[in-house]
Amino acid sequence: MTINILFAAKAERWTSYEAPLNKALNQALAEDFQLGTKFPPEEVDYIVYAPNSDLQDFTPYTRAKAVLNLWAGVEKITGNETLKVPLTRMVDFGLTHGMVEWVTGHVLRYHLGLDIDILRQDAKWEPRDQPLARERSVAIFGLGALGQAVAKALVRLGFDVSGWSRSAKSIEGVHCLHGDDGLTEALKGAEIAVLLMPDTPATQNVLNAETLAQMPKGAFIINPGRGPLIDDDALLEALDSRQIAHATLDVFRVEPLPEDHPYWAHPHVTVTPHIAAATRNDTASEVIAENIRRSEAGEPLLHVVDRDRGY
Amino acid sequence: MTINILFAAKAERWTSYEAPLNKALNQALAEDFQLGTKFPPEEVDYIVYAPNSDLQDFTPYTRAKAVLNLWAGVEKITGNETLKVPLTRMVDFGLTHGMVEWVTGHVLRYHLGLDIDILRQDAKWEPRDQPLARERSVAIFGLGALGQAVAKALVRLGFDVSGWSRSAKSIEGVHCLHGDDGLTEALKGAEIAVLLMPDTPATQNVLNAETLAQMPKGAFIINPGRGPLIDDDALLEALDSRQIAHATLDVFRVEPLPEDHPYWAHPHVTVTPHIAAATRNDTASEVIAENIRRSEAGEPLLHVVDRDRGY
Repeated sequence: MTINILFAAKAERWTSYEAPLNKALNQALAEDFQLGTKFPPEEVDYIVYAPNSDLQDFTPYTRAKAVLNLWAGVEKITGNETLKVPLTRMVDFGLTHGMVEWVTGHVLRYHLGLDIDILRQDAKWEPRDQPLARERSVAIFGLGALGQAVAKALVRLGFDVSGWSRSAKSIEGVHCLHGDDGLTEALKGAEIAVLLMPDTPATQNVLNAETLAQMPKGAFIINPGRGPLIDDDALLEALDSRQIAHATLDVFRVEPLPEDHPYWAHPHVTVTPHIAAATRNDTASEVIAENIRRSEAGEPLLHVVDRDRGY
Repeated sequence: MTINILFAAKAERWTSYEAPLNKALNQALAEDFQLGTKFPPEEVDYIVYAPNSDLQDFTPYTRAKAVLNLWAGVEKITGNETLKVPLTRMVDFGLTHGMVEWVTGHVLRYHLGLDIDILRQDAKWEPRDQPLARERSVAIFGLGALGQAVAKALVRLGFDVSGWSRSAKSIEGVHCLHGDDGLTEALKGAEIAVLLMPDTPATQNVLNAETLAQMPKGAFIINPGRGPLIDDDALLEALDSRQIAHATLDVFRVEPLPEDHPYWAHPHVTVTPHIAAATRNDTASEVIAENIRRSEAGEPLLHVVDRDRGY
């Protein structure tokens, strides 16, 4: 019997995914399949899904075996009561590696003070002393697949890396902390903080007036995780008081970030347009196809979301 | 007999080196020693040396066993005919690692297009597609200690790395090229070029009108090596024609770079004030002390300069 795979995302996504997804499915599946954007709901076997798709009521999809998310973030779908089948998150090589490259670039940018040279307006030859990476503490908040990959890359570059997660973890070369006490310790040691937590009720506003004050004076913040991790008003105050020297923010509560948001014009904020980690069509298609192959073969799915935890 | 160690460099260097060098020598040597800036020349056993020191005539130093350079660069001393004893270059962990960090930071900056975000003047949310490091070719010109360390760090980050050197080399994960034919091939494949050659008659103006034209249109150049590696007029022309998209230059024929030099105000040039790799007092002192220990023990010196090759 033909496997019917519904692609439920914005139309422009279909344009970019149709070819690589067909290619990956052809390579992965021995069975016949049909990939498309329209099927009678009761005939759909798998749903390749973006949370901003029009499909929000899964009730009619009575035959569906799994919903395969195209995004790493799942907070817009975990609360959907009509979804009764397993949900997988996107964890693909391209996305992870893109995140590692982006975070490493911005950590080195802050570490080396590159903005001084890039923004220089006058012909001033002013050498400056530069600490080595081993003298620079970086804390990664959130040690999921992305946080772990970033932490390992920074360790290889010689940085003094701490990592914080809700539950205890162990990563070679990383000073791992967890829980509420661990959070305070991680903040105290974070000359550069990288936020890679999921967006859950427990992580909202994790950076707030109180926690920002626990960081070393003049710390840097890099947020490629989720917008709601930061209390925006508290961060703006901490930037104005120079408690926080600079922030690079890639994600926001509202995207695109509204034109009149104070982050845009702030001299100590770099806004980037949610580009830290894009899903890559080729590598993401391979992950989707592999999960459908596994499901058909009775093997466990990769990257299944625990909807009680929210990620 | 007491070992007399002359420190021959600018006075400000002595201020910063006296303590770490005494500490390192105390740890390394069993023998008595004296470290100072003034000895009768015929009583000096070792000369810790910076090429911009007042000491330029080594003839009176009849007892000296070696000259231990504080700098990585030795082009200002290799031609000195009065120097008859072994000359060592500075190759220390701190300098090498500082260079790796600086080059990796600028390679990622170009790879990720960070200047777009850092220099943005208006509230424009414009996501851009970002290739992965494996899709970005970087060529390292010069595969000495620094070039090899940089090449390995970029390979670990996933870049497509080539390396060029005068004689054939082999480095895991690096596409190694050499000689004149290899130079052309390396230039053709260099979306980002990093110059880490020594300054010798053979390497002067290695980047000139002809070789710049062999690079891919829109390439980036990073020069933390030596100023004379680049024909400055040819580079300015290539930047104006957009053959070269941007250059980050840390070293120059004349330093400090004169205020009226066109590099300062050029919109496609970042000038940095010779900060890519500073000798670190602590780690450099350990290298000097280790070489004196080796010499006294009859062991071979580390990092001896081949003065015919010039490095």
